[in-house]
Amino acid sequence: MMQRHTTIRDVARLAGVSVGTVSRVLNGHRSVTPETMRKVMSVMEAHAYQPNAVAQSMRTRNTRMVGFIISDISNTLFSSIVKAAEGVLQEAGYTLVLANTGEGTVREVELIHLLQQRRMDGLIMTVFQEGNTAVQEAIQNLRLPVVLLDRELPIPVDAVYADHASGMFQATKHLLELGHRRIALITESRLNRPGRERIRGFEQAFQSLGLTPDPDFICSRSLSAEYGFRESYSLLTGSHRPTAIIAGGNQILVGLLKAVRLCSVRIPEDLSVISCDDTDLTALATPPVTVVQRSVRDMGRQAAALLIQGLEEGPGGEPRRILLPTELLLRQSCAPPCEEASRE
Amino acid sequence: MMQRHTTIRDVARLAGVSVGTVSRVLNGHRSVTPETMRKVMSVMEAHAYQPNAVAQSMRTRNTRMVGFIISDISNTLFSSIVKAAEGVLQEAGYTLVLANTGEGTVREVELIHLLQQRRMDGLIMTVFQEGNTAVQEAIQNLRLPVVLLDRELPIPVDAVYADHASGMFQATKHLLELGHRRIALITESRLNRPGRERIRGFEQAFQSLGLTPDPDFICSRSLSAEYGFRESYSLLTGSHRPTAIIAGGNQILVGLLKAVRLCSVRIPEDLSVISCDDTDLTALATPPVTVVQRSVRDMGRQAAALLIQGLEEGPGGEPRRILLPTELLLRQSCAPPCEEASRE
Repeated sequence: MMQRHTTIRDVARLAGVSVGTVSRVLNGHRSVTPETMRKVMSVMEAHAYQPNAVAQSMRTRNTRMVGFIISDISNTLFSSIVKAAEGVLQEAGYTLVLANTGEGTVREVELIHLLQQRRMDGLIMTVFQEGNTAVQEAIQNLRLPVVLLDRELPIPVDAVYADHASGMFQATKHLLELGHRRIALITESRLNRPGRERIRGFEQAFQSLGLTPDPDFICSRSLSAEYGFRESYSLLTGSHRPTAIIAGGNQILVGLLKAVRLCSVRIPEDLSVISCDDTDLTALATPPVTVVQRSVRDMGRQAAALLIQGLEEGPGGEPRRILLPTELLLRQSCAPPCEEASRE
Repeated sequence: MMQRHTTIRDVARLAGVSVGTVSRVLNGHRSVTPETMRKVMSVMEAHAYQPNAVAQSMRTRNTRMVGFIISDISNTLFSSIVKAAEGVLQEAGYTLVLANTGEGTVREVELIHLLQQRRMDGLIMTVFQEGNTAVQEAIQNLRLPVVLLDRELPIPVDAVYADHASGMFQATKHLLELGHRRIALITESRLNRPGRERIRGFEQAFQSLGLTPDPDFICSRSLSAEYGFRESYSLLTGSHRPTAIIAGGNQILVGLLKAVRLCSVRIPEDLSVISCDDTDLTALATPPVTVVQRSVRDMGRQAAALLIQGLEEGPGGEPRRILLPTELLLRQSCAPPCEEASRE
């Protein structure tokens, strides 16, 4: 029952134009008159003509495919960014090709090469560790438009950042004003921009009141729920306990809340809690959790828009950097420290 | 600073073989001796040769790209399935191309055509509404291996299902044995397999005790949090109130918990709650929520494995169907109905 596919030659014959004209219609060439365009399009529709995109991309040298490299698609934060970016790309006629690195730097370089072989027109990506020079080199060697998500590399590349420092400053200030001094921060490594910026905002809030945070209370090694649990448990069962903990990531909060439950600690009576990024869990936990919020939708949309701009303008311009705001969303997980705890 | 790329001709010249031999190495042809293979490979590595995958796929007629069409990548359930599938596909040398339909059937047909144009080797997908004949036709016309996720279509196509009926039977039986009779179920439409199967399991549990569920307590129109909220709020504020509600989806639970909070209803004292699919929220809610569990990781892995099998064996075989188990995970969100409520 194999039916012969309609070819570009059939379309040209039926529309009474040359194959070159059909090709120009397909590639959106400006020299085609609207009348010819309509005629060719109606023949294509009537005969369900499917242009061979692979052959087409050989001619136009672009595939209208954009690669998206991400470290954990199952994190709702990342998948919301992907979803928003994909919406914008699709409107502009691009298809999104997704690749998941997992947590590791080796696969990153491999995947960059793979997507290069697949002739992506551009890439949106995060990077597992900013300091990895192999990844930096791989990105530069691509000679394609690339947009980084929340990473700062010493190479000329477009990027979208969240203003983590400002949100963390507000969060820490809020706790300090409630009377907390023993405030712990659990976040990812200083080696990546979000960790670095969160710690900067945290320290600046202390400094704004002439205070210095306890360095033992800054835990910055990973974004995972396991790390969040381990550090929280160790802080809550130690001799020198914090009266407030800030989770610098939605998975860290998952670990923190598990430790809180295990230690039978009451929020906010025994411990004030602030998290980063609003999720179903922060909104529906008991009590609901105060968060440093940002629009992940904006992050995805802006990254896609930057990439499309790069694709249209070609390489060579100054790198573009977009900084998106964060804000503190107050809920019921913070209270003044109880007397006993603050005397300890 | 544009450097000339190493071409296939350069590799052939440097390795002292013909261009055809290099091409056979690239395509993994068996006629190449191991010695020639090693020689060609080492030249490729030394000169950082990047085969042009687009040109290559023109010759081999496959792109080693697999499309994945999904309705909401930001739902942690779907993104976990994607992540698991992607892991298996990557190991087998396939790249995953992701496309997000949003909730709507028009984009589905469009996206199937788009991925066909992009010459995917196969597709993994869910379908927004099983009854949509345009989507069924589009899938059949693909003449490519396709694996459906949790959808039953009257066309010969591979599929991976979860055994929703069995898990829902156990959940409903558990509530009935606690003494509940006024049990409500909020789930997606009967027009799709998961909704149909959940309702079947729900009704069978009642029947197993010689009972019939109240048809007013079966709400089956959508999987969204908004729908979950609206139906829960209407049930909890109505004159004929349920003593237990089962949320047939993780987003429905989000809406249900919002309604529970708004109505100041206590779980499990005033209302027993069971949800479907285990998430951070079900584990960390107060109290933790009893769930009908399944392995979304297995669903993704099995779908990828089925597709790879289809790609290797080619079309024409009997459709393969895999049924994955569900089980009831007991937590603290269920209790016997309080006397007052059960007398109402």
